[in-house]
Amino acid sequence: MGYFRENIENLEAYVPGYQPAESDVIKLNTNENAFGPSPKAGEALKNFDPNQLRKYPQPSADKFRKIAAEVNGVGIDNIICTNGGDELLTLAFRAFTDEKRNVCWASPTYSLYDELAGIQGCSALRVTYQPDEAVQKIAEISASLSILCNPNAPTADFITPDRISMLAARLEGLGILLIDEAYVDFAPTSCAAIVKEFDNIIVLRSMSKGYGLAGLRFGYGIVSENLLEGLNKVRDSYNVNRLSVEIASAAIADQNYFRKTVGKIKEQREMLRVELVKLGFEVNKSHTNFVLAQHPEAKQIYKKLFDAGIIVRYFDLDGLRDKLRITVGTNRQNNKLLDSLSTILPSL
Amino acid sequence: MGYFRENIENLEAYVPGYQPAESDVIKLNTNENAFGPSPKAGEALKNFDPNQLRKYPQPSADKFRKIAAEVNGVGIDNIICTNGGDELLTLAFRAFTDEKRNVCWASPTYSLYDELAGIQGCSALRVTYQPDEAVQKIAEISASLSILCNPNAPTADFITPDRISMLAARLEGLGILLIDEAYVDFAPTSCAAIVKEFDNIIVLRSMSKGYGLAGLRFGYGIVSENLLEGLNKVRDSYNVNRLSVEIASAAIADQNYFRKTVGKIKEQREMLRVELVKLGFEVNKSHTNFVLAQHPEAKQIYKKLFDAGIIVRYFDLDGLRDKLRITVGTNRQNNKLLDSLSTILPSL
Repeated sequence: MGYFRENIENLEAYVPGYQPAESDVIKLNTNENAFGPSPKAGEALKNFDPNQLRKYPQPSADKFRKIAAEVNGVGIDNIICTNGGDELLTLAFRAFTDEKRNVCWASPTYSLYDELAGIQGCSALRVTYQPDEAVQKIAEISASLSILCNPNAPTADFITPDRISMLAARLEGLGILLIDEAYVDFAPTSCAAIVKEFDNIIVLRSMSKGYGLAGLRFGYGIVSENLLEGLNKVRDSYNVNRLSVEIASAAIADQNYFRKTVGKIKEQREMLRVELVKLGFEVNKSHTNFVLAQHPEAKQIYKKLFDAGIIVRYFDLDGLRDKLRITVGTNRQNNKLLDSLSTILPSL
Repeated sequence: MGYFRENIENLEAYVPGYQPAESDVIKLNTNENAFGPSPKAGEALKNFDPNQLRKYPQPSADKFRKIAAEVNGVGIDNIICTNGGDELLTLAFRAFTDEKRNVCWASPTYSLYDELAGIQGCSALRVTYQPDEAVQKIAEISASLSILCNPNAPTADFITPDRISMLAARLEGLGILLIDEAYVDFAPTSCAAIVKEFDNIIVLRSMSKGYGLAGLRFGYGIVSENLLEGLNKVRDSYNVNRLSVEIASAAIADQNYFRKTVGKIKEQREMLRVELVKLGFEVNKSHTNFVLAQHPEAKQIYKKLFDAGIIVRYFDLDGLRDKLRITVGTNRQNNKLLDSLSTILPSL
């Protein structure tokens, strides 16, 4: 018997998107925000007294929770802060799943769910992601934990909150519904309000996308109030640090900057979609800060773009081998990408 | 059946030390460093370009790992970074324990081990902590995961590395030995070197104590190289943030400041011990940045100190009800504590 649990031994490690050291590449592979965080977040950083770091943080990060509650129209006891949205996923797997309690989600989606199920050693039931059917299929399975990534990555599809409400109602009393809204900043609307209607809801939010703080690792959950105490038992008391709380609080408080930045990304997203279609890609409407562009030569195009210093994301996975996931960049970055593609495509 | 797993429902939440909002209290309850972090850490903070936060961190925090490896005389592949030392404990429980794989430690010790065993749902075997016997008792049990807090909190005792080496040898091939060195900065020596001799070692380190960065949440493990890949599977790819990596790297690189600060704390520790003994406490030699002071009226003294604006730690736990854990503060803080005690003790 090895030192590690068998499920860990058997696990393939999660492969994060490539993070190049060079700063002169055009990096459109991990859905970062090309416009960066609010200047207010920068001020919070510069004004922070380093000597404050000698003391442990306030354990529940109430400063952030208060602002996030206001922004989302919920109460402070509907908010839990985490070290990136990923930590909220980890907490949910540890709180709600085990060998006897299963998890369900619709694939293709965020591949970290596979890893976390493997680590926890719970049974994972995957249904096929189709926006029209995913909700019904997940409801039929009624797992202990159901996860719906909405908008979905990497397909960029969006399911409306009224349909998700119906799913929540079906699952109430049977299991938790975790709605992964990591990309909701770029979608028409959120499911936040349903935490007040149902007792089984966790809405995951990230500061990495619309707020431009991927490097800060700050996420939060909007949760049914009855779930807070149990989730806090699993959460480490000091899971978010003093400095991050200040920076994230300043960023979420600056809703003007947020709306302006998100608006620019949405404009660029539509431009990019239209131009990619002109170049011969099939591109569905996106509700995220990336587009999923289909082309029979996707893998070749990925490699040639890489050689030209432009990094997009290629997934060697079923249903995704003919597609590229391309983060929406600045106007300049998007035009460079389109220029490169104009050169690459005729040579294939 | 509730939404939460039964072991989570049944768990008593971990209670972190009180973190008062007021800054005029004398806070000697959570073993923070009264002298604060290196000025170099502050410079790293001030020089950080906030716009860098828009990008995800380098996933393994190699900048910090390289310096930590040099400081500890090990290789970079012996180092893993975590969001506080607590996250390394969490990773170890998730990697090495489950319903079939047990954990063992010597009590009284850091109470988070109890929580993590409860969350993971593994069987926890507790032996009694006696510096002379703990090693032998832990070896006899040979759990899948053995944890030895050294120096131990809250008893402040220290077991020498040669005896821990013998324990490591006894456990090799049978289970992991995690040596929790959160307080080792104040002890005579570390077990770091044994990661090169055995394949089953994890040495936990914290930047919260000697380096004065409790608010930053940065810890690391010095581990047998063969364990790194498996631990990385359980670790979230982006578990430490960009800014923390810069600040922690600057702090650990400044060994001069570290030695100077630790020296001051050790001096104050001895002064505090001698004076507490004069006041009627029983105080063993400490190898940490706190003293454990025994007095039949410990709980009363705790309350009266609290009313006087001096916060120390009282544990309502077997073997600890007649003791106070007092963080070593600055000379001014320690003298205020001693003055207060001179007033309180005669009134009991």
